[in-house]
Order: sequence, then C-alpha cells, then structure tokens
Amino acid sequence: MTVIYFDNNATTRLDPGVAASMHQIALQGLANPASQHRAGREARKILEVSRDGLAGHLGCRTDGMQADQIFFTSGGTESNNLAILGLSQPVAISQSASDSQSHQVLSPSKLPATIVSTIEHPSVLGAVERLARNGTPVRYCPVLQNGEINLDAFAQLISRHDKAIETADKANQIALVSVMLANNETGVIQPIADIVALCKPRGILVHTDAVQVLGKLPLSFKDLDVDAMTVTAHKVHGPPGIGALVTRAGLRVEPQLFGGFQQLAIRPGTECVALAAGFEHAVAIAVKAVAERSSGMTAKRQLLEAMLLKSPTNPTILGREVDRLPHTTSIAYQGLDRQALQMALDYAGVACSTGSACASGSGQPSHVLRAMGIDERLVRGAIRFSLSHETTREEVEWAAAKINSVVETLAAKSSRSNLSAENLSAENFSADQLEKTV
Amino acid sequence: MTVIYFDNNATTRLDPGVAASMHQIALQGLANPASQHRAGREARKILEVSRDGLAGHLGCRTDGMQADQIFFTSGGTESNNLAILGLSQPVAISQSASDSQSHQVLSPSKLPATIVSTIEHPSVLGAVERLARNGTPVRYCPVLQNGEINLDAFAQLISRHDKAIETADKANQIALVSVMLANNETGVIQPIADIVALCKPRGILVHTDAVQVLGKLPLSFKDLDVDAMTVTAHKVHGPPGIGALVTRAGLRVEPQLFGGFQQLAIRPGTECVALAAGFEHAVAIAVKAVAERSSGMTAKRQLLEAMLLKSPTNPTILGREVDRLPHTTSIAYQGLDRQALQMALDYAGVACSTGSACASGSGQPSHVLRAMGIDERLVRGAIRFSLSHETTREEVEWAAAKINSVVETLAAKSSRSNLSAENLSAENFSADQLEKTV
Repeated sequence: MTVIYFDNNATTRLDPGVAASMHQIALQGLANPASQHRAGREARKILEVSRDGLAGHLGCRTDGMQADQIFFTSGGTESNNLAILGLSQPVAISQSASDSQSHQVLSPSKLPATIVSTIEHPSVLGAVERLARNGTPVRYCPVLQNGEINLDAFAQLISRHDKAIETADKANQIALVSVMLANNETGVIQPIADIVALCKPRGILVHTDAVQVLGKLPLSFKDLDVDAMTVTAHKVHGPPGIGALVTRAGLRVEPQLFGGFQQLAIRPGTECVALAAGFEHAVAIAVKAVAERSSGMTAKRQLLEAMLLKSPTNPTILGREVDRLPHTTSIAYQGLDRQALQMALDYAGVACSTGSACASGSGQPSHVLRAMGIDERLVRGAIRFSLSHETTREEVEWAAAKINSVVETLAAKSSRSNLSAENLSAENFSADQLEKTV
Repeated sequence: MTVIYFDNNATTRLDPGVAASMHQIALQGLANPASQHRAGREARKILEVSRDGLAGHLGCRTDGMQADQIFFTSGGTESNNLAILGLSQPVAISQSASDSQSHQVLSPSKLPATIVSTIEHPSVLGAVERLARNGTPVRYCPVLQNGEINLDAFAQLISRHDKAIETADKANQIALVSVMLANNETGVIQPIADIVALCKPRGILVHTDAVQVLGKLPLSFKDLDVDAMTVTAHKVHGPPGIGALVTRAGLRVEPQLFGGFQQLAIRPGTECVALAAGFEHAVAIAVKAVAERSSGMTAKRQLLEAMLLKSPTNPTILGREVDRLPHTTSIAYQGLDRQALQMALDYAGVACSTGSACASGSGQPSHVLRAMGIDERLVRGAIRFSLSHETTREEVEWAAAKINSVVETLAAKSSRSNLSAENLSAENFSADQLEKTV
C-alpha cells in the first residue's frame, strides 16, 4: 500500500548515509570520551570534531575565547528545558560566579520574570510552568491571528520592564525571553530580530527554539544574535536521541542535571559519540543543500495548497498571509473533526498529524491555533501536513487527490450527522426538557 | 600496538550484533512513536516490545496493574537524577495524586530527608547536593573500610527516623534512601537486602544504582524488592545515549523534564526506538549469558590479582575481604601517583582508570576510597582495572606482566624522587628557614 509521509515536523527519515556513518563509528567500539587513556582521547576527538563541525554549520562564532558553546542534550525537549530553567535567573547566576554563597534561593518576590509566546512548543510551556510553580513570574505574550507574535504586546511588556527597573520592582523585570524561530504547527516565522532589538540593549537574554528551521531555511546563530538556541537532530534527517543547546560565548547556564564533569559539568552524563557524529553529518548535508531544498519544498507545498484549495469544502490555510517555513501547511476544514480526518487520511495512505507529536497524547485542540484566536470550528477541523526535501511532485499530486476525496466524503457524512445531532439536541436535550426531566 | 582494555566500568565495547540490529532499525526510517498514524504506531510497537523485553530481562513484575514501570532516559546520570529528585518528596507527591492543590512547595523545615551512602556515583551525590540547596535535608551514611555501607550507622539513622515520627519532626524523617548495588570503583557489593528490610516496613522508598551489576551478576528488580533501580545500556555492551529508571508499579515519580505526553509525561521527549531496541538486545544477550560470563570474569580477575600481588611493590587490593563484582579490581600502590601510573600504563598498552570516568575531570583523589578511610598514601596510588567477558586469559597475562613492569619502574623512580623531595623540603623549605625568609 502507498503511504505518503506528510509528518516531517514530527520526525524525519534518518538519512541512510548518516545511518551508515554512525554504524561505522559504532563498530569501532569506542571508549568513553571522558576516559583519560588513548582510547578515550580518540573517542573525545571524534566528539569534539563533531561539536566543532556543528558549530560551523550553525553559524556560531568559533574563535578562541569568543567561541559560542554547544551543549549536547538528549533532544529538543531537554534543550528547551535547559534554556528556560538554566537561564531564567541570570541575576542570581551572575553573582554566583564570584560568590558561592549567592547560590541561595532568592525569595519568589525578588525573582525577575520570563516571557514566552503563547504558541511555544510543549517543552517550553512545560518548563515555564515549572518556573511558575517555583515562584518565577511568567508572562505570556499573545500572538496575532496571522500566527506572528504580537510585537505591540511584547513592547508593552518591555516598557513595563523599564518602569520596573526604575522602581526596583523585581517581579516585573524581565530576565529571559523565549520565542520560537518558526512555529511547528503553522510554520509561521517569528520576528526574532525585532525581539532581539528590544531585549539586547536591556541585557534581557533571548532564547529561540529553532528546531523546525534548521535545514529548512538558512540559519546562523551569530546573525540571529540571540543568546541561546535549541536544535535537534531527528528533525533534520539525523538520529533521534541527540539535540543541542547553543549558547553565546561566556553565557553561564545553570545545570539541570547533576553528576560528572562532562560538558563543563553543565550537562553531565556520558557523551554519545556516534549520535554526535550523526547529528553533525546530518546537519552538514542539510546546511549545504538548504537553498535548493528550501525552494524545492516551497514549490511542492504551493502545489499541495493549490490543489487542496480547489476542494469544494472550502478549507482555510492558517498563517498564509505571513512568511512561513517552506514545508509546513496548517489547513482547517470547518465542520470536520481533526482526529477523524487524521485517521481517515491515515487509512487512505496519507500520514499527517493534528499538531505536535509531543502533544498528541492530550486529545485537546491545538493550543497554537487557539492562541491565534482562530474560530473554534476551524480549530476543531485543522490538520498539519509537513513535507521534506524527499517529497516528490508525484507524491504531492497523489496525496492531494486522496486528501480532497477523503475530506469530501467526511464532509458529506458530517453534514448528515450534524443534522441528526441538531435533531437530537432539539428533540431530546432542550433546556426546557432537561428542566422537566431533572 | 597491543592495547588491553581494562576500563569496562567506564564503558564497554558495543556488541557488533547489537550494532547491526540497531542499524537495521535505523534504516527502516521509522516515524515518531508519538505519532498517531500507522507509521507512528509501527515505531511505537518496536519501542514497547523493547520496553517489555527489558522488563522481563530485569526481573520486573509484568502482570497488568501490578506491572513495574520502565522509563527510558538518556543514561545513568539522568536516571539517578530522576530517582533522587523525583522520589525525594513522596509525602507531598502522594497527597497530590488526589489533590492538585498540594503541588505547592513545602517549606524546607517540613521536608523529610534523603539518605545516600558516601560512596555513590557523582550523579547521585550531585543530585542530593541539589536537594540540599533546595532545602531537603540530606544524610550521608558512612561506609566501612572494607567498602560496604556501615549498617550500624544506617540503623541509627533509621531509629532517628522512628523518633522523628513520634515527635512529628519532619527534617529527621526519611523519605528516600539511595544506595548503589555495587560500587563502580571497588566493585564491592552493598547489603541492599538489609537496607530494604529496614526501610520497607517504614514506607521509606529505596532506590539502587545497579549500573555496574547488570550483566555481571544475576539481577532481579522484583527480588531486590527496591522501589526504583537505575540501569544503563553502554555498560553492558549496548549503545551510549540510553538508560532507564525502573520503578515499582504505581510509584509516582515527579518529572524532571517538562514537555509532551511521552512516557506518561514523566519523562517527555521523543523516544528513541533504535536505542531502546539496542538496549533491550544487549541486555537480552547479557542476561542469558550472565552465569557463564560471571564465572569467566571471576577467574580472569583472580588470575590478574594473583599476578599483580606477586609484585615486589606489595600492592593492596581494596575491598578484597567482602563480596565484589566479578570483573573489578581496585589496587593501591603505596608511594606511586595514580595519575602518573595510569598514564604510564596507557603508554605501555593497558587502558585503565583512576576511578569513575564521570569524575575524571576533577583531578581529586577518589571520594570512594577516602570515604572507606583508606590511608591517603594508598588512595593516592590506587588504580582501577575493569574486565569484560571479552577479556581473554592471554590478555590478562600480558597486561599483568606489563603492569608489574611499569609499577616497578615507577616505584624505582619514585623512591629516588621522594628522596630528593625530602632533601628539598629539608634543605630549602623547613619551617625555620621559611620563617627567616619571610
């Protein structure tokens, strides 16, 4: 049976060349890169060559004392957690560099706040909920209906920060901002340059989750001018199990794992040489080919959308008015149920999703689309297609025809069952009747 | 050049059969196991078959509601952190199961304590230091000179707990005990059954770090009767990058990473199917062969120790009086410097270590040997050899001869330089002379 894989934002197919190079490294039976003997130093060399290569591909500053830092983690979730939990209290942290006594916990009222957008990945929203439980104020910046962060609202939070500095009101001062570079559901690219322009002069740290951008659009940590950035291997045809947090040279990150001296003791635990090498290899390929892949994906996404928009069900493409990633389409079919649609498409041979794979256990409609203020009837019928550079025109054409056919079938069924549901509610569950029954 | 690898406690050689099966899975280009479509469900099936297989190999209860839980993590460090940080406040946690309000942070004076031994791995000691910074009392149970935890001292901590229960003195009540199953430096096996016998009737949770025991001795989570156990793949000829925390059925673990719904949202982040399958495969092989491997390693370790003890340098094997892992030797050469010895052996073709690879950045003498109260001159000259089932008799004989030769050369040099050091100190840096100079 033909299956078209349109869920590349959940994970991508591991590149067979990357798989082969990882397997070669695995077969070498490497030692622990933390070991001091020759075998350990050989393993360390491969690890550090991978780290340095990755730094180059990601546009990091690489010269001596000014070199940006790359901490390998287990993936995007851990990287986002490390950024949020490890950078949210830089005031206390910068003191503690010279004064070990100041490691003490500041009382909640004295903690500066963290800002995130309302459309962040669950691993950012989960981390700030943890911050909030521990007394760090969290401010949620709203987004516009087009899917972009509301820069006016953001500027207001920053001006409140300016006033709080004057009045020494810690809880309204901002220490950290975390806004994703492009959204995983809509693909909408966020105005990080504007955010950095507001934050940098004030010494407010900026972290960005760039997981969905790497390999899709040119990406340079230096040019973004942010303080920290999350990337992960498995979204760019690399292996699951490894990600990275990139941080600006000299930035102090409070560790969230505790143990050995690996990675400056900021992210302890035995380092995974084969995974690191696979990550570097995948990113090397993706970065080299990014211009070509990007335009190719854009063309295929445009073809897909053009075909889907011909459907008489009259779908809405969300975030269409602004810049989006080249490979992501969030499309809403009013009156359909997104979960029924996803299942029917799966059965028909189109693998897609109703939103983040990480949120797929919740059964709740997308927090991203809700935050955009999209009509609930559209949110309930919204589905995500995410292509890759491997997607062909033929696949797009085949899948679009299938999708249109499935959608029309479901729409016909749905309009029938809606009618009967209305009958049901009118006949059996009117408020009047309920009153009489109870 | 011949290199004999005697550092299997740092990491083991990835089994080529395991590498091959992981590579096969990697080439399948699996979907994200959190995805709802068929491809996602296929990935999930491999993941869950691996998890179930591992549960069987580790002697977990596997029947229905009474099934123990296996949380995949990035490795031993994360598993130990999750156990310590996620189980140290079960009083608050058990309330919160039915009452979401009680998620509130208890004031430090109301927190029950955690007990660890003084010879735990850095990832346990680092985690309890974090607990202590956040106000959880931590009690360190001393060990005997033979390397075993001091059960009398442990019983005293427990009787203090009993008194604290009577007087409602929270800070002297114990919530969690974490004692490793066997030490990574000396190989000394700890009396976990005695610890469980004291803790279980009192409802005190017991976690054990079994990283070095898996594959070396028979291991059954059910028979140990502990509440949580750490294992990791790369110490048992599996892949680096994956470990697990095994927990008793129904035990609530507070998550330390925040994000999606993977692994009951207790350990979110995209699950790594190939790593999980490799972990299961490696453990399946190791558990099946454990009796044969164990006796083989014991015989080779005995041969090694017998040959090393013939050296005129008169070394001391630490922890020799009690039960040890079959493959680990901690041996001390009084008057030698462990780092110089490790380097000289590396140069001569014997890869070994001065202690935990995780601690190898510190340059400090072993906290384990110091905690045992070993004479500082022995601690300074102590080195660790750790064999595997792949180690041959010929390798042991070759290495033992090399080690004896290197040790004798260094001892001869050392006695000369000690003399000159004494001269130096006597002639140039006597207290009298310093007084005159200053």
